Amino acid sequence: MSKAEFPTSRAALATPALGEPYLLTPGPLTTSLATKEAMLRDWGSWDADFNQVTAEIRQGLLAMAGVDDDSFACVPLQGSGTFAVEAALATAIPRDGKALVLMNGAYGKRAAQILDYLGRAHIDLDKGDYLPPQPEEVAELLRTNPDVTTVFLVHCETSSGILNPLKEIAEVVKAHGKSLVVDAMSSFGAVPLTVEQIPFDVMVSSANKCIEGIPGFGFVVIRRSLLEAAKGRAHSLSLDLHEQWAYMEKTGQWRFTPPTHSVVAFRKALEQHTAEGGVAGRLARYTRNRDLLVAGMRQLGFATLLEDRWLSPIITTFFSPDHPNFEFKRFYNELKARQFVIYPGKLTIAESFRIGCIGQIDEAVVAQLLRAIADSLAAMGVDRCQPAA
Amino acid sequence: MSKAEFPTSRAALATPALGEPYLLTPGPLTTSLATKEAMLRDWGSWDADFNQVTAEIRQGLLAMAGVDDDSFACVPLQGSGTFAVEAALATAIPRDGKALVLMNGAYGKRAAQILDYLGRAHIDLDKGDYLPPQPEEVAELLRTNPDVTTVFLVHCETSSGILNPLKEIAEVVKAHGKSLVVDAMSSFGAVPLTVEQIPFDVMVSSANKCIEGIPGFGFVVIRRSLLEAAKGRAHSLSLDLHEQWAYMEKTGQWRFTPPTHSVVAFRKALEQHTAEGGVAGRLARYTRNRDLLVAGMRQLGFATLLEDRWLSPIITTFFSPDHPNFEFKRFYNELKARQFVIYPGKLTIAESFRIGCIGQIDEAVVAQLLRAIADSLAAMGVDRCQPAA
Ligand SMILES: Cc1ncc(COP(=O)(O)O)c(C=O)c1O
Ligand SMILES: Cc1ncc(COP(=O)(O)O)c(C=O)c1O
Repeated sequence: MSKAEFPTSRAALATPALGEPYLLTPGPLTTSLATKEAMLRDWGSWDADFNQVTAEIRQGLLAMAGVDDDSFACVPLQGSGTFAVEAALATAIPRDGKALVLMNGAYGKRAAQILDYLGRAHIDLDKGDYLPPQPEEVAELLRTNPDVTTVFLVHCETSSGILNPLKEIAEVVKAHGKSLVVDAMSSFGAVPLTVEQIPFDVMVSSANKCIEGIPGFGFVVIRRSLLEAAKGRAHSLSLDLHEQWAYMEKTGQWRFTPPTHSVVAFRKALEQHTAEGGVAGRLARYTRNRDLLVAGMRQLGFATLLEDRWLSPIITTFFSPDHPNFEFKRFYNELKARQFVIYPGKLTIAESFRIGCIGQIDEAVVAQLLRAIADSLAAMGVDRCQPAA
Repeated sequence: MSKAEFPTSRAALATPALGEPYLLTPGPLTTSLATKEAMLRDWGSWDADFNQVTAEIRQGLLAMAGVDDDSFACVPLQGSGTFAVEAALATAIPRDGKALVLMNGAYGKRAAQILDYLGRAHIDLDKGDYLPPQPEEVAELLRTNPDVTTVFLVHCETSSGILNPLKEIAEVVKAHGKSLVVDAMSSFGAVPLTVEQIPFDVMVSSANKCIEGIPGFGFVVIRRSLLEAAKGRAHSLSLDLHEQWAYMEKTGQWRFTPPTHSVVAFRKALEQHTAEGGVAGRLARYTRNRDLLVAGMRQLGFATLLEDRWLSPIITTFFSPDHPNFEFKRFYNELKARQFVIYPGKLTIAESFRIGCIGQIDEAVVAQLLRAIADSLAAMGVDRCQPAA
């Protein structure tokens, strides 16, 4: 198959600069040139023009979460997504509360680790590397542990790529009168998550995932009553979400120096998100990317970790082939030489790697990637591609 | 005086984009176009190319601090400067330790507030809005409070612009065998601060001050033995400086998603810092800016809060004139219309405002600013400018 047989990228999508690889990762990802160009000026963090940007992104995020009244607030926080998860947990769980942490991968585990730092009681449902927590299991745990105040769930567990059954679990949590904290880091903006559809209390995400911004801050969409109850609860000045919110409400400003350029780029990214048709438009593109990726990889002999119904449109885990010549590091470098950066796996059960479907990529890019993978395997002398598992 | 009489900016300095104001603030500040342009590509945070950037900035910062052996480490941390101050305090002060906080402004006060969150014992020497803590006072407090383990001092207290007597105090702290944490947020990179000259144990600064980078992270230069002793001491997963360091040493990567674009821009900013002659070169330019600013403002009738010997080359506080037509908000907007953003004051004693001397500005820009100030006063009908104090 010659290069010319592949469709070329839609003009709407960025072509990275010469020699720059496409980032097929869970983020930071390939962003549009327009988003990056928004960073070509400096902003006074105290100035009204910048406050306006902050107000716009907060409103845009609330709208994306389907909030149209005062019942929820959006609080952005400097730092990576983990900082926002930590701030959200410290805010949502009373000091004498107790969490039920649902885990099936690295990010569920990280939440439990945060609770250990915070000294908050928690019980864990650990499903291992990739099995989804089931609504019935959650119901049973809430029945037998009535002192649980708060449930934590990762929406798309990026470490395997699984899309957990958020809606079903959210309904169970609500029926038990508990509050629900959702880590939607890698899904918000591409997988529908609105207050009408899913009864959540706290949702955490960040700038550099499906909204396709630049890293620098995370944000929390949180029920206002939870926020109001949390005054004085935080363990940290920097991560005190209540204070961040109260100050922002009062002044329009961030409490401490904001990542100005990342914030302004994010406003640009939000505009493009809207232009693409919002969450539905983005979901459609990412799903097409994922479908082509999975079909193409299976044709090359790769197997996915997950059954189709659990595959997210965010990132997919593939088993490394059981071939003596296959070595991930070599594979990574061969692909990088062909302008594609992929991601290592995070499984304990088997050798694997991950390929992201998010960021400024479309089917034309995925088709190029598949060609690059075939070429890389050939270069490595991996002739038949049988999965290891 | 016509516009033509003012010198024009050196080509080496950025001219902001059309309509973009100069930021005469303590940062985020006006950065060079080259620094911003470094953000026009995306970087995989797991990739070796990005790890190389991280390694280079850590080495560059250690070199700037005069470290040429293994006795100190540089640990960058996502978030604003306050996040790094909090992480540094939580690391440097044992849980059963006690701090002496030297304060003469907002940032000293903030450190005490952080210690309250952390539950660390502290005593404070509060000198009010702008008086410098004196070495003899520190010696006396350390003599009468032998249980103090750690002293905290702000180098340039940006809230007034005062440059505190760091060297003298550092020597007192060392003589008493205590450790010293310096908040050099707004001075590092422009005011000499090296391990040979000043016996400090921990120094905190951030990307968007005198090194003229983009906001997104802070960094801590810390004695390795303190870091090693701090395992398990942190109150927060996100702000655990020991873990951030240990992970970075092991993998070359940041523990959680780094502000990639800000990091890459910072490497560019460091190159320009070197090209300008390092700390000495930058100090010279900022000092020239400050000298012209202060002289010009005094000629216009403004008075500085501080005597000359306490004036930093970073930012200067001026009293608002005691004229019925002077109102800060109006003054701010008049100046902004003329493409200059200044900063409000932070004094409790009197109305004031601040003007920064840092960022990509030189004497030509300061001369333009002085002209804009004269014009703004005229537009406001402030004829004679007598200070309020
Ligand atoms: C589901 C999920 N939670 C949390 C995080 C942590 O975010 P960060 O790396 O920005 O701290 C990630 C990052 O990929 C994630 O995918
Ligand atoms: C001396 C000093 N310390 C701490 C800070 C806080 O830094 P940030 O606003 O980045 O959190 C500043 C900010 O100007 C400062 O000047």
